[in-house]
Amino acid sequence: MKVAVVGATGLVGTKMLQVLAERNFPVTELIPVASEKSVGKEVEYRGKNYKVVSMTDAIAAKPAVALFSAGGGTSLEWAPKFAAAGCAVVSNSSAFRMVADVPLVVPEVNADHLELLERQSWRKESGGYIVTNPNCCAIGLVLALKPLEERFGIESLFVSTMQAVSGAGYPGVASLDILGNVVPFIKNEEDKLQEEVGKLLGRYAATKIDMLDAKVSAHCNRVAVEDGHTECVSIKLRKKASREDVLAAWNEFAPLRGNGLPSAPDQPVEFDHSPDRPQPRLDRMRGNGMATTVGRLRECSLLDWKFVLLSHNTIRGAAGAAILNAEVLARLGKLAGSKNNARKPEAVLA
Amino acid sequence: MKVAVVGATGLVGTKMLQVLAERNFPVTELIPVASEKSVGKEVEYRGKNYKVVSMTDAIAAKPAVALFSAGGGTSLEWAPKFAAAGCAVVSNSSAFRMVADVPLVVPEVNADHLELLERQSWRKESGGYIVTNPNCCAIGLVLALKPLEERFGIESLFVSTMQAVSGAGYPGVASLDILGNVVPFIKNEEDKLQEEVGKLLGRYAATKIDMLDAKVSAHCNRVAVEDGHTECVSIKLRKKASREDVLAAWNEFAPLRGNGLPSAPDQPVEFDHSPDRPQPRLDRMRGNGMATTVGRLRECSLLDWKFVLLSHNTIRGAAGAAILNAEVLARLGKLAGSKNNARKPEAVLA
Amino acid sequence: MKVAVVGATGLVGTKMLQVLAERNFPVTELIPVASEKSVGKEVEYRGKNYKVVSMTDAIAAKPAVALFSAGGGTSLEWAPKFAAAGCAVVSNSSAFRMVADVPLVVPEVNADHLELLERQSWRKESGGYIVTNPNCCAIGLVLALKPLEERFGIESLFVSTMQAVSGAGYPGVASLDILGNVVPFIKNEEDKLQEEVGKLLGRYAATKIDMLDAKVSAHCNRVAVEDGHTECVSIKLRKKASREDVLAAWNEFAPLRGNGLPSAPDQPVEFDHSPDRPQPRLDRMRGNGMATTVGRLRECSLLDWKFVLLSHNTIRGAAGAAILNAEVLARLGKLAGSKNNARKPEAVLA
Amino acid sequence: MKVAVVGATGLVGTKMLQVLAERNFPVTELIPVASEKSVGKEVEYRGKNYKVVSMTDAIAAKPAVALFSAGGGTSLEWAPKFAAAGCAVVSNSSAFRMVADVPLVVPEVNADHLELLERQSWRKESGGYIVTNPNCCAIGLVLALKPLEERFGIESLFVSTMQAVSGAGYPGVASLDILGNVVPFIKNEEDKLQEEVGKLLGRYAATKIDMLDAKVSAHCNRVAVEDGHTECVSIKLRKKASREDVLAAWNEFAPLRGNGLPSAPDQPVEFDHSPDRPQPRLDRMRGNGMATTVGRLRECSLLDWKFVLLSHNTIRGAAGAAILNAEVLARLGKLAGSKNNARKPEAVLA
Repeated sequence: MKVAVVGATGLVGTKMLQVLAERNFPVTELIPVASEKSVGKEVEYRGKNYKVVSMTDAIAAKPAVALFSAGGGTSLEWAPKFAAAGCAVVSNSSAFRMVADVPLVVPEVNADHLELLERQSWRKESGGYIVTNPNCCAIGLVLALKPLEERFGIESLFVSTMQAVSGAGYPGVASLDILGNVVPFIKNEEDKLQEEVGKLLGRYAATKIDMLDAKVSAHCNRVAVEDGHTECVSIKLRKKASREDVLAAWNEFAPLRGNGLPSAPDQPVEFDHSPDRPQPRLDRMRGNGMATTVGRLRECSLLDWKFVLLSHNTIRGAAGAAILNAEVLARLGKLAGSKNNARKPEAVLA
Repeated sequence: MKVAVVGATGLVGTKMLQVLAERNFPVTELIPVASEKSVGKEVEYRGKNYKVVSMTDAIAAKPAVALFSAGGGTSLEWAPKFAAAGCAVVSNSSAFRMVADVPLVVPEVNADHLELLERQSWRKESGGYIVTNPNCCAIGLVLALKPLEERFGIESLFVSTMQAVSGAGYPGVASLDILGNVVPFIKNEEDKLQEEVGKLLGRYAATKIDMLDAKVSAHCNRVAVEDGHTECVSIKLRKKASREDVLAAWNEFAPLRGNGLPSAPDQPVEFDHSPDRPQPRLDRMRGNGMATTVGRLRECSLLDWKFVLLSHNTIRGAAGAAILNAEVLARLGKLAGSKNNARKPEAVLA
Repeated sequence: MKVAVVGATGLVGTKMLQVLAERNFPVTELIPVASEKSVGKEVEYRGKNYKVVSMTDAIAAKPAVALFSAGGGTSLEWAPKFAAAGCAVVSNSSAFRMVADVPLVVPEVNADHLELLERQSWRKESGGYIVTNPNCCAIGLVLALKPLEERFGIESLFVSTMQAVSGAGYPGVASLDILGNVVPFIKNEEDKLQEEVGKLLGRYAATKIDMLDAKVSAHCNRVAVEDGHTECVSIKLRKKASREDVLAAWNEFAPLRGNGLPSAPDQPVEFDHSPDRPQPRLDRMRGNGMATTVGRLRECSLLDWKFVLLSHNTIRGAAGAAILNAEVLARLGKLAGSKNNARKPEAVLA
Repeated sequence: MKVAVVGATGLVGTKMLQVLAERNFPVTELIPVASEKSVGKEVEYRGKNYKVVSMTDAIAAKPAVALFSAGGGTSLEWAPKFAAAGCAVVSNSSAFRMVADVPLVVPEVNADHLELLERQSWRKESGGYIVTNPNCCAIGLVLALKPLEERFGIESLFVSTMQAVSGAGYPGVASLDILGNVVPFIKNEEDKLQEEVGKLLGRYAATKIDMLDAKVSAHCNRVAVEDGHTECVSIKLRKKASREDVLAAWNEFAPLRGNGLPSAPDQPVEFDHSPDRPQPRLDRMRGNGMATTVGRLRECSLLDWKFVLLSHNTIRGAAGAAILNAEVLARLGKLAGSKNNARKPEAVLA
């Protein structure tokens, strides 16, 4: 499969190349793409060097899939052009996430939303389409929330994050801003987190997604951690759930287990019983960086339950998220430019 | 005034000596006190060295006031012995904070609670007593809450902290635990924070404190910051308050202004209008380390308002807190062993 | 005195404004200057806001002195234009430092080199001139070396630095490059350090500086420290010196003491006898950030002596260095555009 | 093989268990050993829990080999008792390193020194003996030095280290001491480094080691890095060597290549041509944490060459070092209590 990696010289793009190699994604031809000023540079993939090409040249090369990790503005301009040319765009950027007919997907949570892509005009005309994965904080969070939503319903939640500097890309956060410090602000992050949770946990209703009817209040902070976003959550459920009920929900949550998707962790939500876990340095690589670790489940004096979760922001929260989406799309027969699906998304979860 | 500093060789004790000197506390004789293994060591105060003495020797020296920054266990054993000997114990440790007739005081917030000390048996017998200041996180928080409670009433709140390592004393947190990491757990901290807020914002009812009737849910975390606790707060008020109302409440909150207490900041709650403040490195020294900085006031999708606050944990949250309490007690005529008060606590606030 | 601060919106420029205010530099009119893209922004000085102006407008305003903290390229272009217009340029940038008739000065070390400025063509034509201060690492180092050079002569030295991130300006070092890491490379730094030491400790020979005849070998590293450069030094002296001799040389080194220059520390080299000092967090503010702290003097198995030194890189190493030079120039009657000196540099040291 | 791990609950002991498992060391029975206060605790090894036993019980169990990572004092007392009981002690602690008949070994550097153990009285009486590996800084350093010593001879060297906090064990360095700071002192480290280099690069002379005749001057510092010691080196060689000569010496250094020792890296010294490498975060895991990375080779204005090296301090510098020594001893037939060697150390290098 011809695979374009858009934003190949950036922090997430580099990680994508590394994860593609590790997970043995079936790349027959790699097309690294970046902005004009990086064209001609080289990136390494599986021990070989590849020349970075321009957007225009990449589209002309007709990749089956384009993994986007470009900035929002670039994606807004170029992702539609790839899609219009018949390419499956699997995007990590914030552009298009909240567009009505664009699936925003974490496969363990809402693979059925992928069906939305059939409604996109590009799909109808050229076979191409755009699928997105959420903000890095939202991914770890919805993995922990989905099993609770399924069994008990979610009425409201607080989430206060402590996010790693790699979430801001490279060079990103200046060392003078974060050494010995906390920055209690990340532009647009709270809004993204709040609205993306609503769409991710929403219900696919044939022509659209019905947003989850729950109140979400987010506080987002940057801390001096290299990788791994930690989130403190308080949650109110619609149905009473005991501690054992909640633990069972997490423990038994494994919608993709046995499906052989290389990037899907066997146990997407791992609960740690230690009093002081999860911690980014110790837990971010669980499930090859694709699992969310949850800990410190305890009663909340305001809502029902409190807990802490941790997720690797550049693997599960970015590069790995896009690649898992691509694996699922491949499994569904939606890659390689075919207009006909082999299978419905439900099939992946069967 | 004869002043004993108990725990004089520890992190907070050292800070106390420094703050006592800076604020010109009227020390006629300094008695540094520590555990047996530190007896004989020397500490510096105003350029002079002082020999550390034992608890027993300190009591025998009959200090007018003993500033305690010892551990909970040590305080539990020794604070009553100082009080029984006629000494005013002003304590930074967690012991006694929630005892019914022991005032837990932040002067700007509840100086009237000091009247409780008259009910202590030590007070009646020897003139001695115990007054405590709260946990470091609670102090910064109640300073921001009090103006809101006064004007609008508080129904419930959520607080998620990012606390500096100095809060754990020295040696405290191992570097291997916190470099590039977050520890989402501090022993007993969430319980202390929740219950102390209730007492601090409670109403003095002659023989006791009626706790504030509000739900408080706390998440406490340790981050790689040297000094300064950051707290993310969501709050529900009993009475609608606009953004301007909230800002005015903070801005106009100055119960001790003009009273000439050396440690009382002119503006105990400073609001910063920048989008990304407060930050520990930049804001912890406001008001000589005694002010709480508040920022990022915005609507909460679950409760009413969200904001971020920052407070210096070893100055306002520990050493400076005890010393400000001592300054207030001196002003009230309750130091120096006198059984008769010159004035009621209300006088300090007049 | 009309004072222009060039690069007023940068990290060092901001520090300059702060230090100018603290040291009561006689500013009658402040002219903040920056590159085109910052023109119109405001900077704060002594509680007032000042509009940033362009280079051209600043020159037209005819400042008596221009404190430069712009990048090397900008300084190369603009410093001569200020000088040609009759302005005394006191520059912190690397441009011009090694130019033959430009004094490179740390006043305690080589104030007599200032006489060189009289040879500059600008000086002869308009009264203007350029004086520079050295690289931040060189300043702390030569303060510790000068007393040794004077008494014993220096034959060779090895210096390995651990430099703070603020040395790279803002945004400077990316947090992803330095959190939990060391970067053993700072562009051009080793060369600058080696050659500037030679000029600073060189001998003023009327028409030129005779470089110090000593071998200097530098290793420069960036570490996760906010402020304060630490340097490990091994040194071979020309004359045997005992431990007491070396300590006395440092202790008695006070060429500017009693001269009343606001920025000159009373004790420019402070020796700390603790086994594990100096340390950047604990010692960088000695002498208001203007003193070098030295410690760990011990025998070197290869050369003669080993020691560690520490210096505040943005105060003594940048903003404060330029301002101390300006104070000395004012004292010498070389500011305010006068072509006639009131006094020779030696006078300052008398 | 019965393997005792002494100090099994410590930082290095834990790493040893992990490395033993990863490298498939032929453990038939694991005996975790620790001080009295840890007896009864459990440690994990290959997914199974093992009860920690006392020193006495461990000796009674007659292990073939005891991997020591206990403190100096404990090792001084107990290592001889294990040796006297016929056990091969392979020790990471500082005790015994400089004892005349105790081999101090890095196999790529001086495996021939192992022959010394035959001179130990324990060896003659019970078959037991003590072999040590060096200080963590010395290991990385001698790997880079050995190829230079072999080809050109070493006359003198400077080394200035920036050492990770894990080198001090757990809890080790307090976070308050190292956040935003450098500690330019590590107790006894400079002496150890200087003298161990002399023994490691010394010549085995049948009954003893003739120390390398070279001057070594060390400056040791602690920095805010989790793992990985960085060292800045300046070196004077006895024979002129060009840049190409030095690079070739490192590149061709592979004395154990092809011997199939699981812990021996294929390329023990990896040179990186980037201008700013090695860096601890990026390079410490080269060769599974067993390779030394070297970079920034450049001329030294004082000696001949300057370079920077990096080595993983808890893998190559501790746990992995002891295990590689044990692998070599097994290959030589010196484990399992046999008094007769199958082979001379030279055989391992053949």
